[in-house]
Amino acid sequence: MKMTADIAQYVEIAHELAEISQPIIQRYFRTPLAVDNKDDGTPVTMADCAAELAMRDHLTKFYPAHGIYGEEYGSSKLDHNPLWVLDPIDGTAAFSTGLPVFGTLIAALWDHRPLVGLINQPIMGERWVGCQGEASKLNRTKISTRKTANLAAAILYTTTPDMFTTPADKQAFDRVQQAVRFRRFGGDCYAYGLLASGFIDLVVESGLKPYDFLALVPIIEGAGGIITDWQGQPLSVKSGPNVVATATKSLHDQALSLLNP
Amino acid sequence: MKMTADIAQYVEIAHELAEISQPIIQRYFRTPLAVDNKDDGTPVTMADCAAELAMRDHLTKFYPAHGIYGEEYGSSKLDHNPLWVLDPIDGTAAFSTGLPVFGTLIAALWDHRPLVGLINQPIMGERWVGCQGEASKLNRTKISTRKTANLAAAILYTTTPDMFTTPADKQAFDRVQQAVRFRRFGGDCYAYGLLASGFIDLVVESGLKPYDFLALVPIIEGAGGIITDWQGQPLSVKSGPNVVATATKSLHDQALSLLNP
Repeated sequence: MKMTADIAQYVEIAHELAEISQPIIQRYFRTPLAVDNKDDGTPVTMADCAAELAMRDHLTKFYPAHGIYGEEYGSSKLDHNPLWVLDPIDGTAAFSTGLPVFGTLIAALWDHRPLVGLINQPIMGERWVGCQGEASKLNRTKISTRKTANLAAAILYTTTPDMFTTPADKQAFDRVQQAVRFRRFGGDCYAYGLLASGFIDLVVESGLKPYDFLALVPIIEGAGGIITDWQGQPLSVKSGPNVVATATKSLHDQALSLLNP
Repeated sequence: MKMTADIAQYVEIAHELAEISQPIIQRYFRTPLAVDNKDDGTPVTMADCAAELAMRDHLTKFYPAHGIYGEEYGSSKLDHNPLWVLDPIDGTAAFSTGLPVFGTLIAALWDHRPLVGLINQPIMGERWVGCQGEASKLNRTKISTRKTANLAAAILYTTTPDMFTTPADKQAFDRVQQAVRFRRFGGDCYAYGLLASGFIDLVVESGLKPYDFLALVPIIEGAGGIITDWQGQPLSVKSGPNVVATATKSLHDQALSLLNP
């Protein structure tokens, strides 16, 4: 008998994981904390580690058959269904400098594709949730992207220009940012929440890992937006590092043509 | 008889102005709102205008002898003492895209120099206050800058690389950002609050108007930091557009030597 995905259950579990990680992250926010740098130079804090361990413990105890892939402690059972993909603090640089625009990312995958996604902002008390087949929500209110049709009218967010490390990626980003109404840096996962909620139109990023974007997919798609790699391919646990998210199909077409001239 | 400044009274008035502007800005946040562009290309919203008008009305009604210099409606009685300098929404781009890291800036000047400064963040419920001769506070708790001694260990915030419009300014900023531990974009006035609270070490910016920085001066100085123009001169109503703020004297010396090689 082939198992089938229980999306409603995964939404409930995603909320459980958000509730578990939230007080841990709140407790560490704006306290002196050791920030180490990982091998790739990205910062990791005690809060990242403690929050991920607490979420892993919960899954292992109550859902032992589920797979887990977390930013800080790697993967076990990567081919299991469902697979939980966890990023305890996306935006560690923001977190570690006291800026409340980071988030906990929680995704449930089935056959490597995200079915359920959640962004939790523990300081602002904001939670975006998306799942296949339903409208996405911010704090249980339905949200949708706005209907901007042209890049010339679009607002672009990107976490940092330092994301683009190859000359080709820098040039691709530059073509997009020159075509938009205005660009703003800083945001991490919060930018994708703003896109799903209809406040911005476009996010173009590079250097992302699967745990940075998988939770965003159901949220963006359930709000009417599009999120793919720079070639327009759907995002899976094997995708990365380049991601483009747009409010509309028209913006996506225009962005792809500038990213791949 | 020469009048003297009544700093305690100005602190109370600054709180009154924050209380008046806060509900107006909260009401407009994340609602559809007309965003116009001013002659210099910066966006201005209905919220900017309504919040500034309400603050001006309060000052005119209860403190008719005081001068006012506001971002949206200009100055009257610029040489009066005290002179209130108001920026209803510093970080309009953040505000208009639903990002809660903008702020209302309120400064009281005497002989063109800021004596009292306040940053109000109406969505987070955060209020930084500084005044000459007292320790600065965030939500009535005393704050201080951290004691980072070297640029190589410092965290730099800058609102956007697009602030630096001349080749000389771009190069000056580039020298500083290459010397620090890491840089982050996005922040507006909130970055200066984080600096005063001891979470970051350095802010280097350009393109600022007096209403963008005067309120920050008493807050940074009262927290033990330093804020000047790029030549190290004190900031007055006649300063701008270049500002550098640091957590320590040592960082200030190092930053100035890179800004003016």
